[in-house]
Amino acid sequence: MILYGHALSSASYRVRIALALKGLQVSSVLLNLRAGEQRLEEFLQINSQGFVPALATDDGVVLTQSVAIIEYLDEIHPEPPLLPKAPVARARVRALAQAIACDVHPLNNLRVLQYLENELQHDKATRETWYRHWVPGRRNRALLSRRCADHGGCVSGASGVQRAALCSGPSPVSTDRRDRRCLPRPARVSGSRAGTPGLSASSEAAAPGRAGAGPRPTMRRSAGP
Amino acid sequence: MILYGHALSSASYRVRIALALKGLQVSSVLLNLRAGEQRLEEFLQINSQGFVPALATDDGVVLTQSVAIIEYLDEIHPEPPLLPKAPVARARVRALAQAIACDVHPLNNLRVLQYLENELQHDKATRETWYRHWVPGRRNRALLSRRCADHGGCVSGASGVQRAALCSGPSPVSTDRRDRRCLPRPARVSGSRAGTPGLSASSEAAAPGRAGAGPRPTMRRSAGP
Repeated sequence: MILYGHALSSASYRVRIALALKGLQVSSVLLNLRAGEQRLEEFLQINSQGFVPALATDDGVVLTQSVAIIEYLDEIHPEPPLLPKAPVARARVRALAQAIACDVHPLNNLRVLQYLENELQHDKATRETWYRHWVPGRRNRALLSRRCADHGGCVSGASGVQRAALCSGPSPVSTDRRDRRCLPRPARVSGSRAGTPGLSASSEAAAPGRAGAGPRPTMRRSAGP
Repeated sequence: MILYGHALSSASYRVRIALALKGLQVSSVLLNLRAGEQRLEEFLQINSQGFVPALATDDGVVLTQSVAIIEYLDEIHPEPPLLPKAPVARARVRALAQAIACDVHPLNNLRVLQYLENELQHDKATRETWYRHWVPGRRNRALLSRRCADHGGCVSGASGVQRAALCSGPSPVSTDRRDRRCLPRPARVSGSRAGTPGLSASSEAAAPGRAGAGPRPTMRRSAGP
C-alpha cells in the first residue's frame, strides 16, 4: 500500500496511527503542500479532490478521506478492533472522532490559513488567534473533557480508546507546533494514550521525511505548467 | 426519539433524511441558533458540545455528530441499507459523505460566519464570498463531478446513492438560500436524487417549524442568567 500524505497533516497522521495499530506496512509518499504539490495533475489523477491523505491499496484502488480510510482498514483488518461492539458505544466513539475531524481540523487546514492570509489579508497574529480559537485549547478543553466524561462509560474499553485517540492524537501535535501551552493531552481526551502502540509507532517524529527517519520521498513534479 | 436540530442546519437535515429513509418517527425540538439557544445550560446538559443535531433515543441515550448518528441508525435499522456491502465501495461512499461533512460544512457553520463578522469584522459581501468559496459551487463542481466519476462504479447501487445523498442533499439547500445560481444539484453529486424517498420526506420545507409544517416546538430558555 502507498500512503500519500504530509508529515504535519493531522488527517494523514490519524491514518498512520490506524495502520500502525493494525500492524500494516505501507510506503509513504510525502507531498509538499505549501508548494502546492497536491494540486499537480499527477496527484489529481490519484485524488481528484487534491487532498491528503490518499491510500492506494495493493489492488491499485485509491481511497480518500481519513475517516473513511480508517473505517475501511477496520473492516478488512478487524484485529485489533478500533470500535466497541455495541451500537451506542460505537456511535459515541465515532462522535468523539468526528468532533475532531469535522469541528476542529477543517478550520485549521493549510488551505483555510492560506485564505485568511492571501484573500483576507490577515496578519500572522490574527491567524494564530484563529487557529487557537478552534483547536481544543484552554477554551474548549472543559467542553471536551465534559464530553469524554459523558461518554466515559462507553469508551473505557481499549478499542474505544484507540479509535477516539486516532483523531484526538494528531490534535495536540498540530497544536504543539504553535503553542505548547495549550495542549489538550490525548490522555485527557481519550482516557489513555499511554499503552496505545499505534500512537508512538506512527508519531510525527517517526513519519517518513522527518529528520532521522530515512530518505524523504516526494511527489515528482509534472513537466506541465 | 427526539431530534434536537435546526431547520436550516445541514447536519440536522442529513439526519432527518436518514430517519425518513429508515421510516423512523421522531419528535423534533428546534433550537434558535442565532439566539444562542444551543449554548443554554439546558441544552448543554443534553449535548455538552453545544451543537445540533443531537438524537435522544427512546432509551434516554443522547447521540451526537450527524455522521455518527447516521452510522448508528444504519446499524440498528439495517433496512434499507445506507452503504453498499463491499468494503471498497463502502469506503468510497463514506469518503463522498465525509468530503461534504468535513471539507465543506464546517467552514460555513453559523459559528464560523459569526467569527468572521464579529471577531474579524468582515462585511456581508466578504462573508458571502467566503461561503461560496468553500461550498461546491462553480469552482468546485468540476472536482466533485470528477470524484463522482472516479467512484461511479461503486456508488451506482441504490444504497450507495442514498448514503452519498445524505450529505450532499443538504448542501444545495444551504447554498440555495444564498445563491441559487451556484447549485450543484444533488443529482449531479450523488448520481440520482430522484426516487430517493428520504430526500423529499425530510426536506427543509417539510421540517417542523417551517411554514405549513405545523407548530414549531422550541427549546425553552432556562431561568438562569
